[in-house]
Amino acid sequence: MASTVLGEPMIISMRLHASKEEVAAAKARIEEFGYKVHSISGEERVVIGVVGVGDVTACLESLEAMPGVERAMRISAPYKFVSLEFKKEKTRITAHGVTIGGDEFITMAGPCSVESEKQILESAEIAARGGAKFLRGGAYKPRTSPYDFQGMEVEGLKLLDKARRVTGLGVITEVMSDRDVELVSEYADILQIGARNMQNFALLKTLGKCGRPILLKRGLSATIKELLMSAEYIVAHGNPNVMLCERGIRTFETATRNTCDISAIPVLNELTHLPVILDPSHAVGKRSLVPPLARAGVAIGADGMIVEIHPQPEKAMSDGAQSLDPKQWMQMMQDLQPYIALWKKSRSAETVAV
Amino acid sequence: MASTVLGEPMIISMRLHASKEEVAAAKARIEEFGYKVHSISGEERVVIGVVGVGDVTACLESLEAMPGVERAMRISAPYKFVSLEFKKEKTRITAHGVTIGGDEFITMAGPCSVESEKQILESAEIAARGGAKFLRGGAYKPRTSPYDFQGMEVEGLKLLDKARRVTGLGVITEVMSDRDVELVSEYADILQIGARNMQNFALLKTLGKCGRPILLKRGLSATIKELLMSAEYIVAHGNPNVMLCERGIRTFETATRNTCDISAIPVLNELTHLPVILDPSHAVGKRSLVPPLARAGVAIGADGMIVEIHPQPEKAMSDGAQSLDPKQWMQMMQDLQPYIALWKKSRSAETVAV
Amino acid sequence: MASTVLGEPMIISMRLHASKEEVAAAKARIEEFGYKVHSISGEERVVIGVVGVGDVTACLESLEAMPGVERAMRISAPYKFVSLEFKKEKTRITAHGVTIGGDEFITMAGPCSVESEKQILESAEIAARGGAKFLRGGAYKPRTSPYDFQGMEVEGLKLLDKARRVTGLGVITEVMSDRDVELVSEYADILQIGARNMQNFALLKTLGKCGRPILLKRGLSATIKELLMSAEYIVAHGNPNVMLCERGIRTFETATRNTCDISAIPVLNELTHLPVILDPSHAVGKRSLVPPLARAGVAIGADGMIVEIHPQPEKAMSDGAQSLDPKQWMQMMQDLQPYIALWKKSRSAETVAV
Amino acid sequence: MASTVLGEPMIISMRLHASKEEVAAAKARIEEFGYKVHSISGEERVVIGVVGVGDVTACLESLEAMPGVERAMRISAPYKFVSLEFKKEKTRITAHGVTIGGDEFITMAGPCSVESEKQILESAEIAARGGAKFLRGGAYKPRTSPYDFQGMEVEGLKLLDKARRVTGLGVITEVMSDRDVELVSEYADILQIGARNMQNFALLKTLGKCGRPILLKRGLSATIKELLMSAEYIVAHGNPNVMLCERGIRTFETATRNTCDISAIPVLNELTHLPVILDPSHAVGKRSLVPPLARAGVAIGADGMIVEIHPQPEKAMSDGAQSLDPKQWMQMMQDLQPYIALWKKSRSAETVAV
Repeated sequence: MASTVLGEPMIISMRLHASKEEVAAAKARIEEFGYKVHSISGEERVVIGVVGVGDVTACLESLEAMPGVERAMRISAPYKFVSLEFKKEKTRITAHGVTIGGDEFITMAGPCSVESEKQILESAEIAARGGAKFLRGGAYKPRTSPYDFQGMEVEGLKLLDKARRVTGLGVITEVMSDRDVELVSEYADILQIGARNMQNFALLKTLGKCGRPILLKRGLSATIKELLMSAEYIVAHGNPNVMLCERGIRTFETATRNTCDISAIPVLNELTHLPVILDPSHAVGKRSLVPPLARAGVAIGADGMIVEIHPQPEKAMSDGAQSLDPKQWMQMMQDLQPYIALWKKSRSAETVAV
Repeated sequence: MASTVLGEPMIISMRLHASKEEVAAAKARIEEFGYKVHSISGEERVVIGVVGVGDVTACLESLEAMPGVERAMRISAPYKFVSLEFKKEKTRITAHGVTIGGDEFITMAGPCSVESEKQILESAEIAARGGAKFLRGGAYKPRTSPYDFQGMEVEGLKLLDKARRVTGLGVITEVMSDRDVELVSEYADILQIGARNMQNFALLKTLGKCGRPILLKRGLSATIKELLMSAEYIVAHGNPNVMLCERGIRTFETATRNTCDISAIPVLNELTHLPVILDPSHAVGKRSLVPPLARAGVAIGADGMIVEIHPQPEKAMSDGAQSLDPKQWMQMMQDLQPYIALWKKSRSAETVAV
Repeated sequence: MASTVLGEPMIISMRLHASKEEVAAAKARIEEFGYKVHSISGEERVVIGVVGVGDVTACLESLEAMPGVERAMRISAPYKFVSLEFKKEKTRITAHGVTIGGDEFITMAGPCSVESEKQILESAEIAARGGAKFLRGGAYKPRTSPYDFQGMEVEGLKLLDKARRVTGLGVITEVMSDRDVELVSEYADILQIGARNMQNFALLKTLGKCGRPILLKRGLSATIKELLMSAEYIVAHGNPNVMLCERGIRTFETATRNTCDISAIPVLNELTHLPVILDPSHAVGKRSLVPPLARAGVAIGADGMIVEIHPQPEKAMSDGAQSLDPKQWMQMMQDLQPYIALWKKSRSAETVAV
Repeated sequence: MASTVLGEPMIISMRLHASKEEVAAAKARIEEFGYKVHSISGEERVVIGVVGVGDVTACLESLEAMPGVERAMRISAPYKFVSLEFKKEKTRITAHGVTIGGDEFITMAGPCSVESEKQILESAEIAARGGAKFLRGGAYKPRTSPYDFQGMEVEGLKLLDKARRVTGLGVITEVMSDRDVELVSEYADILQIGARNMQNFALLKTLGKCGRPILLKRGLSATIKELLMSAEYIVAHGNPNVMLCERGIRTFETATRNTCDISAIPVLNELTHLPVILDPSHAVGKRSLVPPLARAGVAIGADGMIVEIHPQPEKAMSDGAQSLDPKQWMQMMQDLQPYIALWKKSRSAETVAV
């Protein structure tokens, strides 16, 4: 129970080039006040995140008086550790040797569900050929109806593992219950949290304690602020490696499966340092609309995308209508290249500017 | 894993006054085909619900040829066991000796969260004085922010138990994770599933195996059909005692916390036999609007309501703005009496008609 | 052009029992400052509404110094004349000798469109038999498709006039363009503004200058505040007789045609003195749901309702699915009587309280 | 009245290279049946659009039997003349010598409102410098509050005319009432219909008879189908030159002023031949988000965009928060160039493919 009590976090900015001793002294002082160091980041300028419950005002005052400490403060945004206020540079997340949030636009691709060894191996090969770095595929499937295919579960995880060994791709797959986090973490490089679980707080807390990067999908009717608060749950409970995913929200429009709130991407880039991934497939729910939306996603500045593809979409057990077939997938990835080139150019310009 | 494979359910209607032997023979035949009897209902006319995976067509044909069997069929609605097609009469759910879905309009009342022994005992007493049959109060709290009060957990459950013993009220409280279902079931008479967990399918499956009645809240952006599908998860996995709860949906309007979709109540009454409960407090989020909305809920034909009250709303740790103070609560319950009298009159007229 | 320049309105409250001379002096002072008296209300305590452009601060100070003036101020709500701040008592609107906003729950009924003499005369007779005070029926029809029936226009207005003469009912009908306001005003007792025209500001300004009461329907995605602002346009331009109408808003839910935001009724009752009318027919779009929603509307405190009925709904040229047939209409009105009796009782209690 | 009766339109496809005489004969036959030729398009293969009321079946049969006629049919989409079924090639609309829907990405820019001669001339000059082809600026302003600036009206139109003469830009400005269409048409090259008037059917009908191209903005809660139906009103009443404008829809999200439904652009490109324009300014309502969204709009395949700029946004009488200042505007247009180059490349590839 005590584990769920989080006080208001604090943030301690050390002066530029503060010495190791100064940082260590600050840490010691924090602990004297009964707080805990949550995270330390930055090289030239160290920033210490602090969590716990105690006498905030006294602690902050005491810290500000220390040599090497520039500022000790509360964070004003409702989301603390995930806010730009806490950390200016984009968080770089490394999974299976690939960095998300860095200088490459990262693509994850694969079928909605793992259906068979043949299907997932073929999918993985196609994904790799198009330039994807991660294979997606659900072993645990959140389905509206209890009578629909619920996923291959552990067997599906094993097939994903096999596909990883064969193709060298990383694996991203969904986890639906706090009970399964440990198991799925054994097989996956990135854990995906579905839209319907974005506010499954028991799950979020457990993710905070797992060592895998998380791709957190925005809920169907979640505000951007709520998405950030859910990410904050994970980070505050100990796991800083969270990517956010825009996958369409629910509105009155029925021409598309969901309504892609594409502006959420630049909005998030103004509010958080976490990488942002676009899921154009769920956003529109219709194959022919995926490539134009993917172009828009690159142009607007997403850090990557996650796309549904299938060797034979017309035979898919789920989401066939929105899955690209191999030819469409290869064509889309080829057409995206000049946009990705512009993306890289603007990304390196930004990095220089920072 | 196998446990999650559900075939399309079937329904077998016996002839009027079919004999016990005929019913037993039908059950035996069902099992021969590798199916399982899910539920048996009706007194004069027995209806058998069947689940499992097998040769549907052959099984149905074989059953239809048996003496005493009137019809053997698939259910056409996407939700099967919860549809009116499956069962015409309203499901009566008994918890702590109180029947929901019957001839009484049932009120559940209490604070958002269990905060202390004093607070919950006072709340329970006030709730009872106003005529509530159940005490509500969260021990596990789904909060948007990880820095907000997360509930007293087990200690809160124990206080609810104490309040039950003191006042004789039944207890309804929220469960947020499949991991906690067993524990919460020990203390609660009814398990409440929050809006954000309406499509937590791992949780829904676990609820199917627990022995407690469930109050399932509609998700913030869930359609009525999705609400029924989530109820179907619980029923198909073995627990027929589900109440549905309209608590407002998310729209563009910000004058109220949510938008109460009150028409969902008669819509549900046309689609399902499950009882429907209104939560006017979350629907509007503002104390002064609760009593008029409660009147509307009684008038439109809800089976009951769940209302937030607090001995001192201005000091509540959560949802203070929408909690009635003791005086407002007593006044509301008094003012509702003539509406409840009309409700009972029309309910008994309906019962006669059926 | 100058006519469209409205300064921030002011409100002058005279002292209790201020003399006629004091009121006259205040009016004279207002005009000296270049302002215009917009409206004068209240008997025991006179309140003067002031519009125009000028030196606000000087004018207010000068007025406050006058004998008989209690307070001279700006109105803080964004909607001024329609706010409760401006006027505490419910506005009573009289049309065709019937008072809306008073001690009677007023029902308006009739077909979606005027289709023929026979149809509208039959409809009127049925409406009257059920206790309606006004006949509704569109002569100008806002239709999504240009290929759908667009209404009988002037000929339809003449038929409505005939139905009024035959049955004694008042007539309410829609006007769709500022160009038609004068013509429709000749035939109608109340002008109806459709949801799609709620922010047709050219039309709203013209309505401000017409002598007929207005029923202003809430736009499909209009907030309550925007509805009040649109009413403010009409009132600020000179016509105080505006009723507001909740007719369902557009959301993601498709089980009903729109989502009835029933809580908007008590919200409006806390913000404005204008009467509020419920349109249960458009809210749900399905005949069987209209009677329960009508009950809810009475219970929650609407001032009246507007209902679609048709002698033969299955042959209606528009909105057949949501129109009650004569039998359903009579049954609904009979079933509503005990709810209307409770409504009257609570309304007279309130009046005494005020 | 008769003018508002539109029968179901028909479409007559002539054979490839049908002779002038065959086309003339078909036209004569159409008129014999009491129908009217609405439009003739195509060079190699002539397509005749037919409107009116008569004996459809007989007319279609008679036409199909004629020499040179390939097919005579009804259009199955609910929107007829605006559907791709009716016409495959993108409609090119020429205004002030500039073609929209062709090989150039067209930008319209200017302030929300015309405020003064100085302001509009400066704005026009800045717009032109950045590469805009049209100057936007409202003379008639739809404002939620009657107390807000309502526009300079005729005087504003005259200033726009002056700005056009000085800079050579075309002029696009809003018309709010059917009463003003004639007047505004004298000054504007393109008439803009605001979101709140998208279903002002009296206005749409009048626009059908005016000679100016129309930019029709999507309503706040209008579906894509409804947008097309509103365009159909204008086209069916005689004006084929309609551009559609995505400017954000209303959802629960409040981080942006509206939610840009960017997928609507490829959806429209699959359904209609009308050009589609993006308004990134109203979509997001915040200056810093406009450039990334504009990039996405180019990438996803809009035909152009309409952007709010202001010489001094902080002093704007309306929409200041979303208006770019001159420096931001120039920077955005420069940054867009490589995206526009990709747009042109893909557009010419498509043209070749057709």
